Amino acid sequence: MKKEILLTPGPSQVPPQVAAAGAVPIIHHRTKEFMEVFGRLIEGMKKVYGTQGDAFILGSSGTGAMETCVVNALSPGDRVVIGITGKFGERFSLMCKAWGVEVVELVREWGHIVTPEELTETLSKEKDIKAVFITHSETSTGIMHPIDKLGPIVDEYGALFIVDSVSALGGLEMRMDDWKVDMVASGSQKALMLPPGLSFVGVRGEKAWKAIEASKIPKFYFDLKKYKKSIMKSGDTPFTIPVSLCLSLDESLKMILGEGLESVYARHKKMSAATQAGIKALGLKLFSDHLSYVESVFTVPEGIDGGKLVKVMTDKYGARVSGGQEPYKGKIVRIAHMGYVTHHDVLLAMTSLEMALSEMGFKVELGAGTKAAEEVFLS
Amino acid sequence: MKKEILLTPGPSQVPPQVAAAGAVPIIHHRTKEFMEVFGRLIEGMKKVYGTQGDAFILGSSGTGAMETCVVNALSPGDRVVIGITGKFGERFSLMCKAWGVEVVELVREWGHIVTPEELTETLSKEKDIKAVFITHSETSTGIMHPIDKLGPIVDEYGALFIVDSVSALGGLEMRMDDWKVDMVASGSQKALMLPPGLSFVGVRGEKAWKAIEASKIPKFYFDLKKYKKSIMKSGDTPFTIPVSLCLSLDESLKMILGEGLESVYARHKKMSAATQAGIKALGLKLFSDHLSYVESVFTVPEGIDGGKLVKVMTDKYGARVSGGQEPYKGKIVRIAHMGYVTHHDVLLAMTSLEMALSEMGFKVELGAGTKAAEEVFLS
Repeated sequence: MKKEILLTPGPSQVPPQVAAAGAVPIIHHRTKEFMEVFGRLIEGMKKVYGTQGDAFILGSSGTGAMETCVVNALSPGDRVVIGITGKFGERFSLMCKAWGVEVVELVREWGHIVTPEELTETLSKEKDIKAVFITHSETSTGIMHPIDKLGPIVDEYGALFIVDSVSALGGLEMRMDDWKVDMVASGSQKALMLPPGLSFVGVRGEKAWKAIEASKIPKFYFDLKKYKKSIMKSGDTPFTIPVSLCLSLDESLKMILGEGLESVYARHKKMSAATQAGIKALGLKLFSDHLSYVESVFTVPEGIDGGKLVKVMTDKYGARVSGGQEPYKGKIVRIAHMGYVTHHDVLLAMTSLEMALSEMGFKVELGAGTKAAEEVFLS
Repeated sequence: MKKEILLTPGPSQVPPQVAAAGAVPIIHHRTKEFMEVFGRLIEGMKKVYGTQGDAFILGSSGTGAMETCVVNALSPGDRVVIGITGKFGERFSLMCKAWGVEVVELVREWGHIVTPEELTETLSKEKDIKAVFITHSETSTGIMHPIDKLGPIVDEYGALFIVDSVSALGGLEMRMDDWKVDMVASGSQKALMLPPGLSFVGVRGEKAWKAIEASKIPKFYFDLKKYKKSIMKSGDTPFTIPVSLCLSLDESLKMILGEGLESVYARHKKMSAATQAGIKALGLKLFSDHLSYVESVFTVPEGIDGGKLVKVMTDKYGARVSGGQEPYKGKIVRIAHMGYVTHHDVLLAMTSLEMALSEMGFKVELGAGTKAAEEVFLS
């Protein structure tokens, strides 16, 4: 018999009731029954985005939502600033370049962030910046950006602020209106507790819509004007939406909004604090000083094979975690705690880590990680 | 108590075992476990496409797969011929124009098709045609095109043959290699018996890949070269695929390939013949001489309110069918029989139709429709 818990930075665990909601007999998407659900989803997503503006639901991965932001807000020849702090910042840059957008790359070493001061410095030097792209939670390194502090700076310089919150939304606080974030791209299989297949785009208001109206990049499936028109006209989507995943979203939003967004964010902070305390208590080093609340990352200690550590934790001890990507392959371990996660998951991550390290010959006090995590949960 | 059967041209009914397969605890998409499933899906889809070439699985609606064909095969300034026989042919044209492709529109009245003779005539007159776009089954009118006859003609003129088989694949025969079809776009929520959210693109071989290599349209999420590279390198997709829908597809392909493609196609023909016989026996007129095997469409008789007929059949008698779109709103009724459909469904469609017509004052012999359909099933 084997039990495994999924602690990867997406897909994340799907609550059984959310999965079950998507497995009922399929309904047609142009019915009153579905429209009612869909209207509720839009309103729910606007709450999660913290906006009075628009929330769009698309059928794609999170990358599709990122592309939607790029091809709707920009035109070839535009200049943008992109914070690159890992694999997903890089993806925004590759996309922009694909459409002939000139990119000023703010590259930071993996594990680091773009600080408000650094962004101010760049914006004060660079001319004609149309938009600034930042990754909310960069899952390749585990860091998070202070979107609340960056938003007002970007706004001051008159640029659009476009945020990849694919892995953060629903786990980290987002207040598009208060923080002046113009567009946010998100995915379903992270803190929103769904299988992959839905993506989301939040649009704050006039500043973004002016850019969308002016955009000269051709598009069809990801054309936000089509989605807006369809919502206004008939309350639905221009193209068939993944109906079963929408029914699941209805259930997961009920859970998230029922728990209360503030409480959901506090829970993620707690999971993060407990996981980090456990990691440190085992004598391991956190990979960054800027770790987000949805993912804890530590550096693989000298003499330990990082790939093997992930494998032992996953295959033998049943906590599926992720290793590093690209330059950090084998060098870091990523334990996600996004969405459907409680102290059960964090404590089983700790026990798996302790046993795996012990078995691999790393000097570790069994129980020290769980003790430290439990102390956080009891505090 | 109410029971309803879904007989709309997408979404179509999802077998309970297919829905259940997607509701198991989510697995990670970069695992050996999922790769095994995914490899099987690719091989299964190649069989359904009738190609030794490539089958790609994307996370989007069928429209996303259509866009994938357009943006990968073409460049701005290319000239193409598009058969427009309804709403979905029109969609290909709108897309091509969005990307600066010059479109020769072969427009036919709704209910008609582009014949092999007409296509030959057009291709012999027009110069420098890069591609021909045809809708396999046009769900807005119910017609189907003879892809087997059109393919060799297009090939003779050296153009790419690109087919929208969103609503046909898995219900109507497709032999990409034998019929010289270069690219085919399909969706999950039709004859493939899944919820919406997955789409598919078949690519036959060198001719298509040469065009893909030469394409100058910028793209990212729908870039087939990224998908090909990812499959070759690691057997998976460049972006997170809808995992739960893939698990469902594994189950539906097991059903389809288990029944045998020939038998599946024969079943669709039988459903079509029975439905059409029933419709005619009730004194109604079929909308077209070219109706496909996945959908039967009839003209609403004089004096009957077409919108109300659909509503009564659906809401009162529990057979959810579709009315007409755009110019044919209220004028036709569309009964789909794609995918998870047996004589149960066809006979309940007939009984609902008989009772609805009778109730609305149309002179109809109760039982005449079912009798005619039963005779087909017994033959």
